[in-house]
Amino acid sequence: MEQGVEDTLYEARVALDDLRDAWSLLDPEERIEAFQSLKTGEAEEFFLGLSSNDQAQILAGLPQLQRQLWARSLAPDDLADLVQATPDDQRGALVTLLDEPTRRELVALLAYAEDEAGGLMNTRYGRLRPEMSVDEAITYLRKQTPERVESIYYAYVLDQQSHLLGVVSFRQLIMAKGSAKVSEVMTTDLITVPDEMDQEAVSRLFAQHSFLSLPVLDAQGRMKGVVTADDIVDVVREEATEDIQKIGGTTALEAPYLEVRFVDMIKARAVWLVVLFIGSMLTISAIRSFEGELARASVLTAFIAMIISSGGNCGSQASTLVIRAMALGELKMRDWWRVFLREASAGLVLGGILALLGLLRVVVWHHTFADDQGAPYYGDHYLLIGLTVAGAVVGVALWGTLVGALLPFALKRLGFDPASASAPLVATLSDVTGILIFFTVASTVLSGTLL
Amino acid sequence: MEQGVEDTLYEARVALDDLRDAWSLLDPEERIEAFQSLKTGEAEEFFLGLSSNDQAQILAGLPQLQRQLWARSLAPDDLADLVQATPDDQRGALVTLLDEPTRRELVALLAYAEDEAGGLMNTRYGRLRPEMSVDEAITYLRKQTPERVESIYYAYVLDQQSHLLGVVSFRQLIMAKGSAKVSEVMTTDLITVPDEMDQEAVSRLFAQHSFLSLPVLDAQGRMKGVVTADDIVDVVREEATEDIQKIGGTTALEAPYLEVRFVDMIKARAVWLVVLFIGSMLTISAIRSFEGELARASVLTAFIAMIISSGGNCGSQASTLVIRAMALGELKMRDWWRVFLREASAGLVLGGILALLGLLRVVVWHHTFADDQGAPYYGDHYLLIGLTVAGAVVGVALWGTLVGALLPFALKRLGFDPASASAPLVATLSDVTGILIFFTVASTVLSGTLL
Repeated sequence: MEQGVEDTLYEARVALDDLRDAWSLLDPEERIEAFQSLKTGEAEEFFLGLSSNDQAQILAGLPQLQRQLWARSLAPDDLADLVQATPDDQRGALVTLLDEPTRRELVALLAYAEDEAGGLMNTRYGRLRPEMSVDEAITYLRKQTPERVESIYYAYVLDQQSHLLGVVSFRQLIMAKGSAKVSEVMTTDLITVPDEMDQEAVSRLFAQHSFLSLPVLDAQGRMKGVVTADDIVDVVREEATEDIQKIGGTTALEAPYLEVRFVDMIKARAVWLVVLFIGSMLTISAIRSFEGELARASVLTAFIAMIISSGGNCGSQASTLVIRAMALGELKMRDWWRVFLREASAGLVLGGILALLGLLRVVVWHHTFADDQGAPYYGDHYLLIGLTVAGAVVGVALWGTLVGALLPFALKRLGFDPASASAPLVATLSDVTGILIFFTVASTVLSGTLL
Repeated sequence: MEQGVEDTLYEARVALDDLRDAWSLLDPEERIEAFQSLKTGEAEEFFLGLSSNDQAQILAGLPQLQRQLWARSLAPDDLADLVQATPDDQRGALVTLLDEPTRRELVALLAYAEDEAGGLMNTRYGRLRPEMSVDEAITYLRKQTPERVESIYYAYVLDQQSHLLGVVSFRQLIMAKGSAKVSEVMTTDLITVPDEMDQEAVSRLFAQHSFLSLPVLDAQGRMKGVVTADDIVDVVREEATEDIQKIGGTTALEAPYLEVRFVDMIKARAVWLVVLFIGSMLTISAIRSFEGELARASVLTAFIAMIISSGGNCGSQASTLVIRAMALGELKMRDWWRVFLREASAGLVLGGILALLGLLRVVVWHHTFADDQGAPYYGDHYLLIGLTVAGAVVGVALWGTLVGALLPFALKRLGFDPASASAPLVATLSDVTGILIFFTVASTVLSGTLL
């Protein structure tokens, strides 16, 4: 490469990177202006790297002719994503811009849900017949116009009914004798993906097998398309983002943090906050129902916050561990009993550790500080108070851990996303019960002395 | 494919799938037994699909000769992962099993951190010179023994000092005229990865550009290896798992949930629980310092749990949204001020919604229930109590939201992982402050009446 060319390329790259960095700061009109100021090659690279949402926004702002050009530059699977990101009332107009075969491919793709293999796959791939020779295969593949085939590192060997018989990589074709039959060269021990497989399951297949692409088959074993590892990188990132947002107690956001509209962000957060707030109102009644106990042993009030928060913390840990292990396919429904046993032990051990610390806190404070009247800090029954705190912490930690560990299983069984067992939900559930546990332990331990 | 062959393949696949399902239930000896009972082809597929931890465990249990065979079946990058998963005292013995060139490649790879591009890359890839003709290139690539080149869909064109000049795909080679020069066919507008780039940044490059592999260069522009999209699928999953575990308040686990040793699991969870528990002990002193207020207005006690938990919930939402946006590269350090403004507004709006609900709760209960003596539930000053709750909820929600949103920035600035701003940590931080806010609001609103 000559130095001059290299410099120009370098400058173009810098301009592109600048635009990428500044993108989220621009409003829609500025974006379209900036996009139109790019040189053709840069604009193409930039456009293909955008999210489907951003692509739809750009298209909407371009004149008809350019819109058609850019829409046609996309492969059918990316086009399907774009159409799904376009507001309903503009979809029809967009689809009319396409040529007839692309439109047909698009309609077929749109029939699949966005999050199943059929919705991810690319319908353009190299096709061969088993009886072809390697030389014929190479000539034939050369003729399939390059822009119709996005990432052709494998060619798929199909019979007349489109049943998948085998796969050859371009490498195998290059390495093989020209006169050999494709059926002799092809690999027949295939890993395939059903077109209705959930994208999380597809991503697990990729993680397990280290393939760069997998063929997608319908229920009759007919080849429908290919899913490539680069699409799976996107899927894994999106699924993790959704799970993380749900774990934090937010409905999954539709766009990047800085781009989502303020009102949509409030909606995504307010729903759960309101539900949790109403749930946590139960703590008002719970605490109030122990008014008598609190009046007699007001010292207990001070421990309420610490005790219930330790339940919430234990629960957050357990639920996030279980949610993630489920998403990775490490835990199945049938494992719930093993998880129960494991988490029951964990809850007891962790609760035990915290309980010791709680007891220690009471004892140390009692011997270190005096109350306003100069009397020992926690009165004559300080050891019983310490034991109450310790007992409550064990109970609350055990309960929080079990709620956190089993709630994802329960949600999944009921058909919900296990990730909805968010840290705040688990914390709120264990708050209410925590108060009951605390006062039950207190009544038992302190009965006859303080209570 | 004949029916008989198909049946046999199908049965082998079923056996493999069964073993995969049962894997986590088996103890180490059973695993080795089951593994040795597989047929050679199945065993290879199974072994290559295992995690590095499992591979290391299997190798440790096999006789010397088999161990050598299996170790040599791995590509250098997978081998490097295996060595990193092997206990320190057995690594030396493992490395001596390898042939000299592999050992050299391995040592070069181990010099990189596990989580940078150099630690992910494969050092085996097709190399070409720019002055070769396409026909020479094809012949040359055929000679590079297949098993030395893991996933050769591209060949890289290097000068004598290993500087990367361009890339040709096998497809480009097949499509080009045999007499053309490689330098005329190759693509020179390259996206490359520096060998010390963090794997999260590498995964962002893949997500942005939809490539199946990218070349890795050292600081001098010399080609060191290739990173492929299938490795990135693993990376993205691992990084997300780590972040999710941290968000839940656990130190990242080293193995799948059901496989991690109980004592390691306890360690990973106890550290943060103890830190958080000690932090939440501050609530004891905080509540106790308002003993006087509580004695005069004991009704306030009932609201403590609800008010502080709404702060924790708001904080969990904000911190997980910000942590994820940072991991995806949507938020940079310089965005902290925009995040601050956005979250301050969000905190006020969300706090406002919850405050209304809180006020409503007090008013409705006041008018619906009577206390034990038949007097109105919250006494004469029920409206002031309602306003206290509402004011405290706004303050706590705003505070929790800001702590959650800004703590990840602070942690990142200090060199820690932003994901350590876990839901439990944010909740605990807003618990303590929440109590102070609650009683400050109470003193202001109720001064002269209840207080």
